[in-house]
Order: sequence, then structure tokens, then C-alpha cells
Amino acid sequence: MAIKSILNLNPPSGFRDFNADTIHKRNFIINIIKNQFELCGFEPLETPALEYTDILTGKYGPEGDKLIFRVLDSGNPFEHLKPESWQDISTPESLLSLKNRLAEKSLRYDLTIPLARYVAHNINKLVLPFKRYQIQPVWRGDSPQKGRYREFMQCDADIIGSASLHHDAELVLLYANVFEILKIPVTIKINHRGFLEYFLNYCKTQSPNVEAHFNLTKFCNVIDKADKIGWQKVSQELVALGFDSSMVARLEAFMNLPQYHFLQNIIISIDTLKQFFGDETDSSHLEPTDNHSYHNIVNQSFYTDFSELHNYFNLSGLSAKKPFEYCKIVWDFGLARGLNYYSGIVMEVVVDNEVCKTKYDTQIKMGSIGGGGRYDNLTAMFGVPNLNGIGISFGLDRIYDVMDALKLFENIPTKHQSKVIFFNLGEVGFNKSFELVHVLRKLGYPCELFPTQQKLDKQFKYAESLEYHFACFIGENEISKNEMIIKNLRTREQQIISLETQANFVEAFKHFINKN
Amino acid sequence: MAIKSILNLNPPSGFRDFNADTIHKRNFIINIIKNQFELCGFEPLETPALEYTDILTGKYGPEGDKLIFRVLDSGNPFEHLKPESWQDISTPESLLSLKNRLAEKSLRYDLTIPLARYVAHNINKLVLPFKRYQIQPVWRGDSPQKGRYREFMQCDADIIGSASLHHDAELVLLYANVFEILKIPVTIKINHRGFLEYFLNYCKTQSPNVEAHFNLTKFCNVIDKADKIGWQKVSQELVALGFDSSMVARLEAFMNLPQYHFLQNIIISIDTLKQFFGDETDSSHLEPTDNHSYHNIVNQSFYTDFSELHNYFNLSGLSAKKPFEYCKIVWDFGLARGLNYYSGIVMEVVVDNEVCKTKYDTQIKMGSIGGGGRYDNLTAMFGVPNLNGIGISFGLDRIYDVMDALKLFENIPTKHQSKVIFFNLGEVGFNKSFELVHVLRKLGYPCELFPTQQKLDKQFKYAESLEYHFACFIGENEISKNEMIIKNLRTREQQIISLETQANFVEAFKHFINKN
Repeated sequence: MAIKSILNLNPPSGFRDFNADTIHKRNFIINIIKNQFELCGFEPLETPALEYTDILTGKYGPEGDKLIFRVLDSGNPFEHLKPESWQDISTPESLLSLKNRLAEKSLRYDLTIPLARYVAHNINKLVLPFKRYQIQPVWRGDSPQKGRYREFMQCDADIIGSASLHHDAELVLLYANVFEILKIPVTIKINHRGFLEYFLNYCKTQSPNVEAHFNLTKFCNVIDKADKIGWQKVSQELVALGFDSSMVARLEAFMNLPQYHFLQNIIISIDTLKQFFGDETDSSHLEPTDNHSYHNIVNQSFYTDFSELHNYFNLSGLSAKKPFEYCKIVWDFGLARGLNYYSGIVMEVVVDNEVCKTKYDTQIKMGSIGGGGRYDNLTAMFGVPNLNGIGISFGLDRIYDVMDALKLFENIPTKHQSKVIFFNLGEVGFNKSFELVHVLRKLGYPCELFPTQQKLDKQFKYAESLEYHFACFIGENEISKNEMIIKNLRTREQQIISLETQANFVEAFKHFINKN
Repeated sequence: MAIKSILNLNPPSGFRDFNADTIHKRNFIINIIKNQFELCGFEPLETPALEYTDILTGKYGPEGDKLIFRVLDSGNPFEHLKPESWQDISTPESLLSLKNRLAEKSLRYDLTIPLARYVAHNINKLVLPFKRYQIQPVWRGDSPQKGRYREFMQCDADIIGSASLHHDAELVLLYANVFEILKIPVTIKINHRGFLEYFLNYCKTQSPNVEAHFNLTKFCNVIDKADKIGWQKVSQELVALGFDSSMVARLEAFMNLPQYHFLQNIIISIDTLKQFFGDETDSSHLEPTDNHSYHNIVNQSFYTDFSELHNYFNLSGLSAKKPFEYCKIVWDFGLARGLNYYSGIVMEVVVDNEVCKTKYDTQIKMGSIGGGGRYDNLTAMFGVPNLNGIGISFGLDRIYDVMDALKLFENIPTKHQSKVIFFNLGEVGFNKSFELVHVLRKLGYPCELFPTQQKLDKQFKYAESLEYHFACFIGENEISKNEMIIKNLRTREQQIISLETQANFVEAFKHFINKN
């Protein structure tokens, strides 16, 4: 026993226990998200915690691969390994390779790859478009810090098998509706990777030193770091990669085009592009080549997407003066999103600290609390090419932390409306109480019986800490008169109820509960 | 791509994907169990998927230890291992030891040990008795077979810190209520390990060859196998362990005392014991020693428990002629339950095939679908001794399989009451539909828009397969008249709704939905 008691009883670092109070608050958020998913016609899907390691590796970039939790094979996983392979862990690659050979299965890292695997596996059974939502935990071996856990809940909604831009619009609206209900001030940033790709190609024509295989994914990975390390370092990195420095300056200017309320006036965004790409007069400091003028841009498919999205936003009433109290929807040409698989519209939700300050007199330091985008070829890696897809994700744990910091849980509905506790005043009364508890539970009232005849103040303390609303008392005195006392623990009001007949007891009990 | 497409896209063996239909049915069961838990005053708890391996090992017996899924440490888990330890995997023990050193964390194997860890960790914060329920998946590396999965959902309710027998009674009633609502015919078997312990000691006094350290746990492990391998083999094993063969015969007779409806008459059970232990005349074939007569038994604490439980059952109305339609509660002196930590009352729920035959004209081959018992010293292993506990568990996945086999899902409420789909009849109508979809979603109607202008029969097929209840049509004709057609897809009834004003549209829409 001595050894046992020195065990570490904390959950592992980055993992958490959730008590009733926290679960209640988490479920409050989850139910709002789930309800919005269902209103939009999404159907639930659940995939297993473990996937074959092969399915997961190579999908999240080299850094992501390292963070996948691998599960040691049952039986003897070492049996088929030669001693040499055990020795060879000299490089990160050989180490990962050894780990993979010992672990056929791994914990899911997100909900997108399992979805792609599910869709590819069931492609002949599914009716497209397949709109699914999935609310399940995912696991990553990241170093834990504020807002970053090793086990956290993702709430994803995806549409597979439809290229229609109205889905892109409905997902942005879904984001807005959820945060509006939660009363979290947010900025929903939108961009189209086409703009970035266009710009990358433009830069590359002007920068002969950039390697040909430097593609959009790598480009996005670099510029996505701007938020963390600043533009100066990103610029240096790009120049080191061979980009012409004037092109890098131009890129920076493009990425930092002012964000603005997206829909209040579509003209603004189009004007901005026109100006930037030199169709209008005011662009003297940036020298566009003919190939990359505004007129060229409007013929690109990403520009059609851009305009179509505007159309859907207008139709859904977003062009009203102030469609939301808590949400701002902005176009941000600087938004890249690091993930490999995005191909069209990308979006990201961040806390709007300006509004937080005004409304709640506080500010929050927190990364993005949601993100998503269009990935038009995700299932190709599982043998099913040419399937359009788009999805968004809510980061439940960060949303929770934000709501906690903004004290937004203070106004949510209480956990229990009418929980009843029978106090223990000795054996005779206890037996009667036990009998009544079962009558009341059958009628749907959550109730409980204090198990031992402890001092009343201790029983009161118990009832208070578990938020019981009503207490019932049956002591010897009550037994002799065939009655009980019921008390509202919040208002202190109390009443005597006769136990002569069960029907009368139930009647009087309901009456007391309902009026309180 | 060629390599990728030969990936195995099945979930790993023993793991499953759940589609919307299955999730709906699983949630139907979960919600009923959860509701009963909450009626009895249990509060939710969630613990992480991963626990420190140290916390889990040594709790489930040597077989259980092998089935724990260990998670390879992040970084380089091999770094601190000497090459020798890698070589030494010659015995099952050294293999497990190596695995444990590579895996600080493991997937939870049940919900009971995490509960014990949580209680020990938070003992100073918790108000006792602590009534918690927990509904989460657990993972075991067992070989998959019918009714046995590697990822399965447990639904547990436990009471920590109370010795009162009324909890034992309330948990039996909770079982009965759940299966009554689900309409699954079951037998809830109850026993008290005290009877077995008493009998073991009795046998040991008569069997000098039995080793002194052959304790109740080992004894229960042996006799628990009777269901699977038959009494004859269990008898042989006990004789091989040194038990006197006449004692073994007597044990068998005891274990096979007739099961009977527990509460219909408490006298039966007491009479049975009296007869068996020779207090009455009719026990000539069994020669009790003085020490183990009925009079001796009634002085034992387990006998007090036994009587007290009878008392609570009587109080809760269980002594009525036929308190349940689907559940039988029986006392079964042969019930052992294999788990190490049980100390008092044990219980187990099995499908009652006799009633299945009568009511559903079918029979089910399935192990226990629920089980539990009293474990009065569970947290001692984590340094907190002398804490009483009792708990039960529902095996969701087996309950699901049973309900599926009995076709009990046919009568549960449908997934969606009033899902609406707008068919796609071309761009102009689509834009109008998109606008209306957002109006209706705001009002709380789940609705959807078919994304492409496919042939109508294809759109009908889609609506049917996703169980849409209503369809709306806005074609060019409708646009020109500023109206739409709404149709009930089940009754085929349809109506024209004017789109002149939004208020009128909403009014007419609601009217049509409500009357259908």
C-alpha cells in the first residue's frame, strides 16, 4: 500500500477530468452547436477513437505526424522486428518508422481524415451531397499550454459531394449564428486560396530563384506564421527562399489590405482589388504587370467564387446595416490557414477584443476558436478522386475558456430545476422516505435520500453543495401524524403535506413544487 | 496514388463507424439510461481517455493487464532503454514490463478505476456520498466476436461513501426501470459474496489440503466459470485444488439452489437457507456441522444485508404480485462475478429468453448486459481506505444488439419530425429558396437546399433516403407568380403558398407543417 499511495493521481498532463458543473457548461455549448448543425440539415457521424496508423500518417505535415498518439500493438509487437531496426533510431524518420511498425493503430488526430476515410469506404452507399456533423474528442501529443490540450473536443460540419458556393455561405452563417447565440464577440475572417495562389505564381514569374516545387501548401505554411512571428521574419524567410524582395513587399501589401465588414458593401472589396491590381489610378506605388491586372483577375475562377459568395450573403440578409450584434464577417486577404488540403474558400474565427472590451470590459488572449475551408480533393488520397468538400470546425475547449473568461456562464440555465432531497431523521422516517422517493421518481422528479442520520446542518450543507431545490423531512413526530414537511431551500418557504393517501400526497407535492 | 488506394479503409477490427441511423438508436438507449440516473440523483463525471499506465495495471487480473491498450510515449520512448531490456521479452511478464516502460499512458479499460482515481484525488473536495454517473467508451484489446468489441460504451452509476443498503436496492430498481422502459425481457440476478465466503471457509475447514492463501477472489474466479464450462469441470478443478469432494458436491447444491422471484415472498428465501443449512427437518442428505447451521448464518453480517435488502424492496412496492412486465428479480446463490474488487451484494442482468420467446417469438444468445456490486475498499489502492462504494454498469453495445435482434427499434420515435428540403429547379428559384431557407432556419425548422439542378426523381430519391418530411418547389413558374409549392412527402398532400410578404409566407408555412 505504501508504494501505491505515491502514485500520481492527476490525469496525465494535458488531459482533464470534468465534474458535473463543467460538463453542464460544456453541454450548453455543444447543444447550441449541435442544434445549428441539425437546422442546416447535417446528420451525425461517429468514427472510432483508433484508426489504422497508415490512414493518419502523412496527412498533417511532418510536425503533425510526430504528434499522433500511436497505440502499441496487442500481443508481442517486437516479435517480427530484427534487433537492427531497434538500434536504428538515429534520425527522426527512422524513429517514426520504428514507432509505426510497433503501432498498427493510432488515436484520431482530427475529425476530417476519419471523415475522408469513411466517405471513401462507403462511397457506394452514400447519397450525395453527404452532410455530416461529428462531435468527438481528438488527441495530439502537443506540449500542453493555455488553450491547448492533448485531449480536446472538435465539433465539425462538412459537406461532401457538392461544389455549390451556397454551402460556403451557409457555413459562414452557421458560425455567425452560433457565436451570436453564445454572445461571444468574434471576427469571422474569409479568404480564397485562389488569391494566394495567383499571387504566388505572379511572384514566381518575377523571382527566377524560387524552386519550381515551392507550391501553394509550402507558401501557405510560411505566410501563416505571420501572426506569430511577424511579417518581418516571414519576409526574410521568403527572400531566403529566393523570392524577389520587391515581390515580397508587394505580397505584404496585398496580405495587409484592410479587413472590412464583408457584406456591408460588396463594392468595397471589388474596389480594393481593382486599386491593388492597378485597374484604377490610385496604385502608382505598386507596378502590376499586365498579366496580373484586375481585368485578368475577374476572369479567374476564384474571382467568380468571390462574387458568388457575395451574392449568397446578400440573399441571406447579411447586407443589412448590422446583421449581428456579436459577429463581424470580414474579408482578409492575409488569411492562409496552414493545413495542406484546403483549395478554395478558407475561414477562421477569432475573438474580437475590441467588442469584448466594450461589452464585457475585458480582453482575451486566445488563438482561433474555429476554422475551416473548401478541400476539393480530400478523399483522393483514399482512392476516391474528384469529390468536392467543405467543412468547418468549432474548438469546444477554447470556446469554453473564452466564455469562462467573459463570465458568460453566469447567465445560462441552471443545472437542475427541481431536485428533491429527503433528509434522514432516523429509521422509521427513513423507511417512509425511501417509499416516497420511489413514488416521486416514477413521476419524473429527480430525488435523493440522505443515507445516514447525521446532524441536520451537515445534511443541509450536502443539499446546498449539490444544488437541491427542495428538502423533505419525515421524523418520528411526522410519522405519528402521518405527514411530512417540504421546504423550498431557496425561499425557505415550507409546508406540511399529509401522507394519508398517495393520491393526496402526490397532489400536494406537485402543487408545492409548481408554485415554487 | 496507386499505393494509397490499397489502404484498408475499414475501421480497425473490433472498432466501428456509426452512421446517423445507428447513432439515433444508440442515443435513444443512452437517454433513457441517463434520465434514470438523473432521477436517482446521480451527477455526470467525465474522465480522460488516457490514464497513467500505473493507475490501470494490476487492477484487472493478469488477463486484463494484457488487454490494456498502451500508448507509445511521444518523443523518443526508446532513448532511456538499454539494449538488453529490448532483448528480454522472453516471458509474458518481461514483455509487459517493456511495454509499460515505452508507454507511460494507456487507454481506459473501464470506468470504475478512473472513478476510484478521481475520488482519491479529489477526496478533500467531494461531499459524500458522491453519486456519479459516467457514459463513455472504454477500450480492450480482446479478440472481437459477436457482442464483444474493442471499443464499447459503458454507462456506469456509482455511489461512493455510503454503506446504506438502500443504495443496493435503488440500483436494482434502476436496472429494472431501464429495461422495463426499453421492453427488454431480463432477469436481474442478485447474490451476496458473504454467502460464498462463508461457504468457502466452511469448505476449507473440511478440506485440509486447500492452500491457506486460496481466497475469495480466486474462489469466485473458479466458480464464475461454471456458466461457460459447466459444473463438472469446475468441480474437477476444485478437487484438484484440494477441496474435499463431498464439500464440492455440497457447494454445487448450494450454488444451484433454485432461483426464484426475489420479492414475491421473502419467506421462500429464508426457508431455503434454513432447509439448506439444516435448521429444519428436510436436509437429511446434507450434513451440516454445528458451526454452519442456519442459526449461525443469521448472525452473520451478510445475512443482515440480505434481510435489509428485502425490507427496502418491500418498501419500494416490489412485493406486488407482478411489479414488472419485462423484469424478473431473482436471488441466485450461484452468482459469483469474476471481478476482484466486489465485497458485498453482486448483481448481473441477463436476457430472459423464456419471456423473449413468449413476447417476441425469438431467442437471444448473449452474455450479461449489465452487472455491478458493492466494493467497499476500492479507493484504498489509491491511498484512501475505508470508503464504501457500490456501482452498476450497463453494456450499451450489447443492449443495442439485443434490441436490434428483438426488432425493438421499430417503435422508437423517428429521427426527424419536420425536416424540409427545397428542390433545385434552376438558378432563379434557387436564389429565392436560399433566402427562404435562412428565414426558416432562424425559426427553428431544420431545412436544406438541394445544391444542383438534377432530375426531379433523383432529388426525390435524395429526400426519401434522408427521411425529409416536406419538400418545397420554386421554379420559374412559381417565381413569376411569387409563390411556392409545399408538399408532404408522406401523405403526398400539397399546397401553394404565396411569397408576397415574409409574414404571410411564414404563417402559411407553419400552418401546413402543423396540420401535417
